[in-house]
Amino acid sequence: MNDSIIPRIIVHGGTGRIDDPVRRRAYSEGLKEALLKGREVLTYNGSALDAVIAAVVNLENNHLFNAGHGSVFCHDESHELDASVMDGATKKCGGGIGLRTVKNPILLARKVMEESSHVLLAGNGAENFATKVGVQRVENNYFSTPYRYQQLQEAIAATATRLDHSSELNNEKKHGTVGAVARDSKGNLAAATSTGGITNKLYGRVGDSPIIGAGTYANNATCAISCTGYGEEFIRHSVAASVHTMMAYGDMTLKEAVEEVVFKVLPEGTGGLISIDNKGDIVYRYNSHTMLYAYVDEFGEIQTHM
Amino acid sequence: MNDSIIPRIIVHGGTGRIDDPVRRRAYSEGLKEALLKGREVLTYNGSALDAVIAAVVNLENNHLFNAGHGSVFCHDESHELDASVMDGATKKCGGGIGLRTVKNPILLARKVMEESSHVLLAGNGAENFATKVGVQRVENNYFSTPYRYQQLQEAIAATATRLDHSSELNNEKKHGTVGAVARDSKGNLAAATSTGGITNKLYGRVGDSPIIGAGTYANNATCAISCTGYGEEFIRHSVAASVHTMMAYGDMTLKEAVEEVVFKVLPEGTGGLISIDNKGDIVYRYNSHTMLYAYVDEFGEIQTHM
Repeated sequence: MNDSIIPRIIVHGGTGRIDDPVRRRAYSEGLKEALLKGREVLTYNGSALDAVIAAVVNLENNHLFNAGHGSVFCHDESHELDASVMDGATKKCGGGIGLRTVKNPILLARKVMEESSHVLLAGNGAENFATKVGVQRVENNYFSTPYRYQQLQEAIAATATRLDHSSELNNEKKHGTVGAVARDSKGNLAAATSTGGITNKLYGRVGDSPIIGAGTYANNATCAISCTGYGEEFIRHSVAASVHTMMAYGDMTLKEAVEEVVFKVLPEGTGGLISIDNKGDIVYRYNSHTMLYAYVDEFGEIQTHM
Repeated sequence: MNDSIIPRIIVHGGTGRIDDPVRRRAYSEGLKEALLKGREVLTYNGSALDAVIAAVVNLENNHLFNAGHGSVFCHDESHELDASVMDGATKKCGGGIGLRTVKNPILLARKVMEESSHVLLAGNGAENFATKVGVQRVENNYFSTPYRYQQLQEAIAATATRLDHSSELNNEKKHGTVGAVARDSKGNLAAATSTGGITNKLYGRVGDSPIIGAGTYANNATCAISCTGYGEEFIRHSVAASVHTMMAYGDMTLKEAVEEVVFKVLPEGTGGLISIDNKGDIVYRYNSHTMLYAYVDEFGEIQTHM
């Protein structure tokens, strides 16, 4: 490992508020496990890209988080998943929209980045591409869990569109997404984001998670970003790319740019983001009730927050 | 009309090179007609939003342009259309992806903006929403024209993914999109973009046209933008939003920001954009062989370029 560059990673698990102590512990353990998966890649001199993919695959496979297995239900009792990834070294990127049979959406996003001439594929076409490039497909009900089904029934009863893994039904918007950003021992940055969308969704709604520049961005010149929250606002304000552009053209630090976007550009209550700059500084900010995240601090200690 | 603010509009018709003189004249007339539709709205004190919608609807209905009727064919001989719109006064925005039965995709984008809580709808869900909000639906073959079918056959023969309304088959990437940006007599800005995608496309590819911040952006604080070109690069660099952020945080004029993005950020040959700032200055730049556009200059004369 390069002596001068200490690799770092931070992961997030959305902005949903979790009150029950047993569930809180489970989420905390889940975040730690994903963080350690990513950190292990970095420790053995792996790339930031491999690290964020490893962390996000772990979160997708964990039923607690609203991504992959354990995703929320659409109105029609099916699941539609989105994901995107960007490599700050090459600025290559890829994303998938409305995936119904791809076990790990983030792995498809990576294949879009590496093995297609496009950056964004949607629906059946994206799934045909998954088969072509050897990404594992599953039945749609692989993503189902009893807890999410109960959330859907509650949401339908409340005739509300509802987000995330909150244990209460209320009017506060809740958001479920997972993501990771990292810097590796070569100084390269990467970002990845994956989501199961919003409970009870209709009409093929697309959020920010699959969209480069909205939910995900990475550029070695500045920073790597993964967002979570009310996706419409993150698209409207091109949140992830805006942080980059403010740093590159506005002479702002990562902290200044993130705080500008989260506290001044975005409406209050819409969510937050995790980020790392090309010096290895980690910044996490949110304007919602909370945000779930975990990282290794400057003393080597794992910090989790929810 | 407010005496101090002269409303202005500029429209574009993509970046395809057209050599045949008869076809050139037809495209020139088509651009002028759309421009005048938009200008008429502005002259009678209509909003920038109504003006860009009127111009883009006209271009969608004109079989010459790769949007609405006259869109290119996907590999499976069907059509999939995308569009987006943004209102600089409110920063409300909307877009539709993969529309197969919506006669005027830009009208659906406007309904997404005005009558849904989302900013981006895709596929069947978007079409169900169209029916709900009373946007006209048509059979998919409404979009077909013999000329585009011939382009598909040529593209399949060349086993190439091919863009736009170029009359020659070659390796140069060609791009078909239409768009408009305007400032109205109240000083409000708006932008709209619509496309039929790329000839012979597979795998549910999504370009920049439906994505706010990539192909379309408007904000009264700075500018309105509509892009055309190789959509993957416009997504990767969040082109439309980057111009705004450079102006808002980088102390750049519209011309400086547009030239930075088109000539320094984007790879050569990828396309261009039309834009207007909140003082009414119009800027159009491209790094491809050409770009089709029309506007009314400071002397009231219509200028067209292709």
